[in-house]
Amino acid sequence: MDVKTIPDIVVGRLPIYLRALQAMLDEGRKVTSSQELGERLGISAAQIRKDLSQFGEFGKQGTGYSIDFLAEQIGAILKVNRVWDVAVVGAGDIGSAIAQYQGFTNRGFRVVMIFDKDPEKVGAQVGSFTVQRVEELESLVQEARIEIAMIAVPGAEAQSVADRLVKAGVQAILNYAPISISVPEGVHVQYIDPVIHLQRMTYYL
Amino acid sequence: MDVKTIPDIVVGRLPIYLRALQAMLDEGRKVTSSQELGERLGISAAQIRKDLSQFGEFGKQGTGYSIDFLAEQIGAILKVNRVWDVAVVGAGDIGSAIAQYQGFTNRGFRVVMIFDKDPEKVGAQVGSFTVQRVEELESLVQEARIEIAMIAVPGAEAQSVADRLVKAGVQAILNYAPISISVPEGVHVQYIDPVIHLQRMTYYL
Repeated sequence: MDVKTIPDIVVGRLPIYLRALQAMLDEGRKVTSSQELGERLGISAAQIRKDLSQFGEFGKQGTGYSIDFLAEQIGAILKVNRVWDVAVVGAGDIGSAIAQYQGFTNRGFRVVMIFDKDPEKVGAQVGSFTVQRVEELESLVQEARIEIAMIAVPGAEAQSVADRLVKAGVQAILNYAPISISVPEGVHVQYIDPVIHLQRMTYYL
Repeated sequence: MDVKTIPDIVVGRLPIYLRALQAMLDEGRKVTSSQELGERLGISAAQIRKDLSQFGEFGKQGTGYSIDFLAEQIGAILKVNRVWDVAVVGAGDIGSAIAQYQGFTNRGFRVVMIFDKDPEKVGAQVGSFTVQRVEELESLVQEARIEIAMIAVPGAEAQSVADRLVKAGVQAILNYAPISISVPEGVHVQYIDPVIHLQRMTYYL
C-alpha cells in the first residue's frame, strides 16, 4: 500500500472513527455499521465506507463491522497499536494540564517529561513529573529517542522551542502556542488554539 | 452578501489569517502581501487571495494589504470585533487552565463563569472565578445571555452537559471532552482533542 496515495483529509478522519469505535467498545458493543458510525459523527455512511475502503476490506456487506477488529485495524494504520513517548515544553497552566491529562491512556501516547525555562518552575512537581530545565531539552529528548512533543510556551518562544525539538530528533509537534511555526520538510505540526475554533463558530452566530 | 455562499473550509481559514496578521501587528508591521502571509502559513498566495476575494476587495494589486485594515475587516467578518462572554463547564485541570488562559484577550472572547458538579470544587477559586454549582448552569447562563461555552468534563458527561447548555441558549460549543456530541441543527460544535491531532501525525512517522 503506497502511503502517498491516501489524501491527508482521509487520514485526518481515521482518528475520529477510532475514537467513536473505542466509545462503542466502552459501551460493550460488538458490531456496528457505517450508518450508525455516520450518525454518531455527522459524516455520511458513504463517506465512511469510501474512506475505509482505501485501506482494505474491513466489513461484510449486510453484516457490518466487528468493532474490535475495525478499531484494531485503524489503530495499526495510525501506528497507535504501540505507545509513543511524548515530551511537553512549558509547565504553565496549559502545559501542566496536558502533562497530567488522563485521556492519552490507551490511545497510543504517554507524556514522559516536561520542561520549562522559568527557574521557579524547574524542579517543581507536575503530577508525577519533575519539571526539567529547558537547557537539557536536546540531550534528554535525544537520549530518550522521543519523536513527538507538545509545545505550550508563549507565542514569542514557540519557534525557537520548535527549532530545538527538531534538532533533538522530534518529528511531530502539537503546538498549543497561538502562532504558526516553521519546521523542515518531513516534520509534522498540528495546532491547538481554542480561539481559532471559537472564531470559526462566531462567524455563524 | 449571502452567508451561505461561503464554503465552511474558507471560513475556517479566516481565523488563521487573522492570527498571523495580529502577530505581524505585534511585530510593528504595517503592510503585507498574500505571498508573505502564505509563506508564514504554508498556504499558497493564490489560495489566500481567492479566500479573501470571497468577502470583498481588501488590497490593491502591487501594493499589498494594510495589515491593520485587513485584520479589522476579517475581525468584523468573524464577528470578533466585540467581546463574547464564554462559560466553562468542568473545573478539572483542563477546564481550570482554559478558564485562566490569557490568550483570549484581544481575540474576541472572555471567560465569565465556570461550573463543576464536584461539591469539593464548587466554591473554590480558579483564577478570578468562583466555581459555580452545575445545577445553576441553566439559570446563570440564560440570565447572562451567554451564547458560547466550552465543555471540559469527562466524556461520559459531555452529552448531558451539552444538552443543558443548548437548553440555556448556548449556540456554539467548544468540546474538550474526547467524545462526539449531538446538538440540534443551528448549534455549532468544534472539538479539541489532542489525541486526534497526535494520531493524525503518527500515521506519517
